[in-house]
Amino acid sequence: MRRIRAVMYGVGAMNAITTRMLLEKGVDIVGAVARSSEKVGRDLGEVAGLGITTGVLVEDDPDRVLGERSADIALIAVSSYMTDQYEHLRRCAMHGVNAITLSEESLYPWRTSPAMTAELDHLAKQNGVTLTGSGFQDTFWVNLVGLLMGTAHRIDSVAGRATWNVDEFGPELSRDQRVGNTEQEFDQWLRDADRPPTFGLNVLHALLADTGLTAAQFTLTTKPVIASKSMRSNSLNLDVPAGDVIGFTDVDEVTTREGTSLRFEMRGSLYDVDEADVNEWRIDGEPDVHVINPAVPTQLATCSQMVNRVPDVINAPPGFVTVEQLPRLRYRPHPLAQYLTA
Amino acid sequence: MRRIRAVMYGVGAMNAITTRMLLEKGVDIVGAVARSSEKVGRDLGEVAGLGITTGVLVEDDPDRVLGERSADIALIAVSSYMTDQYEHLRRCAMHGVNAITLSEESLYPWRTSPAMTAELDHLAKQNGVTLTGSGFQDTFWVNLVGLLMGTAHRIDSVAGRATWNVDEFGPELSRDQRVGNTEQEFDQWLRDADRPPTFGLNVLHALLADTGLTAAQFTLTTKPVIASKSMRSNSLNLDVPAGDVIGFTDVDEVTTREGTSLRFEMRGSLYDVDEADVNEWRIDGEPDVHVINPAVPTQLATCSQMVNRVPDVINAPPGFVTVEQLPRLRYRPHPLAQYLTA
Repeated sequence: MRRIRAVMYGVGAMNAITTRMLLEKGVDIVGAVARSSEKVGRDLGEVAGLGITTGVLVEDDPDRVLGERSADIALIAVSSYMTDQYEHLRRCAMHGVNAITLSEESLYPWRTSPAMTAELDHLAKQNGVTLTGSGFQDTFWVNLVGLLMGTAHRIDSVAGRATWNVDEFGPELSRDQRVGNTEQEFDQWLRDADRPPTFGLNVLHALLADTGLTAAQFTLTTKPVIASKSMRSNSLNLDVPAGDVIGFTDVDEVTTREGTSLRFEMRGSLYDVDEADVNEWRIDGEPDVHVINPAVPTQLATCSQMVNRVPDVINAPPGFVTVEQLPRLRYRPHPLAQYLTA
Repeated sequence: MRRIRAVMYGVGAMNAITTRMLLEKGVDIVGAVARSSEKVGRDLGEVAGLGITTGVLVEDDPDRVLGERSADIALIAVSSYMTDQYEHLRRCAMHGVNAITLSEESLYPWRTSPAMTAELDHLAKQNGVTLTGSGFQDTFWVNLVGLLMGTAHRIDSVAGRATWNVDEFGPELSRDQRVGNTEQEFDQWLRDADRPPTFGLNVLHALLADTGLTAAQFTLTTKPVIASKSMRSNSLNLDVPAGDVIGFTDVDEVTTREGTSLRFEMRGSLYDVDEADVNEWRIDGEPDVHVINPAVPTQLATCSQMVNRVPDVINAPPGFVTVEQLPRLRYRPHPLAQYLTA
């Protein structure tokens, strides 16, 4: 039987989990790429903390790995925005390797980075490969929402709310999320900030594309989350006193010419002891539909969706194909190669 | 622009709502069929209680309506089981008219009525039309569950729970659901009953087909729901005393060779004052995923999904095509004809 050959592009926390899942689903890992000198030259299994030797050494030259290994697909877990992601996706396309990334902007980059996306789409088509952004957002913020919107006859508004624990993502992201700022510092930052596109904006663009609704006006509102008591930031090794900032909430909204409004509120902040990630959406119209995922397993579900999407991406027509266009995600109890259509 | 031509096959409570929704989505209703002499000969808008005259008279001869009107699709809302549904679907196929039905067994009839389904599939292919069973179950019990199963790397068990209010469906169904029985009468009935396939069994078959899991053993457990206080049945004009039966719960379970078990618990009973329909699923594995639809709008969402599926059914390849094979359902803000691919 045919087997799928994959390259791990980036070997951090997420691709460590993804590596294990791919091996458990019968995928051959034929290369691994990282930049850090602490990782390069070591066995992928060791770097990923899998307790096994994979026989695959981590290398630092993505062009060599992509050019030499006849991989079917690269799993990219190295950056968030298209300005950084562009070169990685371009490289995969030029070497004729399909790619799936958990880069947030890649979920639906056609409006926030139109020129780069169009160029990647063109290169992918020229080289007969598919480029896709997936991850947690694939199901929980796009396809689940699109599916439930599909049960409505008329939609007046869609409102989503998600939370994530900033302390799970290291000191850099905690600083980006303004943990430990005073309210005054936060307000100053917000006035002056030259922020990249919010993730929520890409989610709204994906939902608009999925339904064919026509955007009228976008708005973004950003509000600090204020500690109501002293809160501990483990990432920053810092106690944030009551009254200071423990993160912020982005509220992205869009009105449409059809009269439907979409709103997505995403809070990234320190969590209290008993808090868990939440995903909740309300569709108001005829009928009203409400869906709740309590205690969503954000990190694991990011990796498992990347893995379950591998056959979809290989099967898809060439181009930059966003997840609302892929087939509805399915459980993969069998080796992934069994789900290839050609 | 092309328009879609539809026949309302059955003009009861559900197709009355569906008629309105189709008209609001720019579909031409070109015929309506009913058996009751109270409906035949009257205007569809009047029979459906829409407060408008549609110019379409309700007729009693489905063969003439299907044969003469060049309809693209028939929306069938007249029976639950394949033994009754067969003749209606067969008739549509023979006249070259696509059909979508809310018949429960038609959701996935390949295992519970294999010969009839195979014959319908053959006739549909011969005549170039698609036959599909949709309704509430399409998203909430099949495609939503399949989608969330698709976010898991490994699934140990899937457990769903749904409830419906038996008092909303008239006296016949209340009697079928044993409302007003003593416990002894219920037990006697359960021992002797020659019951048709449970709806839960069709749901499990659809989920097995969706994931490629291989059934090992099916079990069905049926338990009476006992009134804890006196409860009113409006359908039967009856007060059920505490200790007597107000409905029952079917628990369908299947184990699979892959080790995943699926379980669906459906309770149809009288409701207490503050009860609403619930739909809740737990997927245990890696990771655990939990989804809740509180207060699901069962009746409206049955009709809206039938309507939103119309383009999918017309677009689908010929045959008996079950909903887990159709494209992921989408919201249809525009006239339905805009979503036709050919």
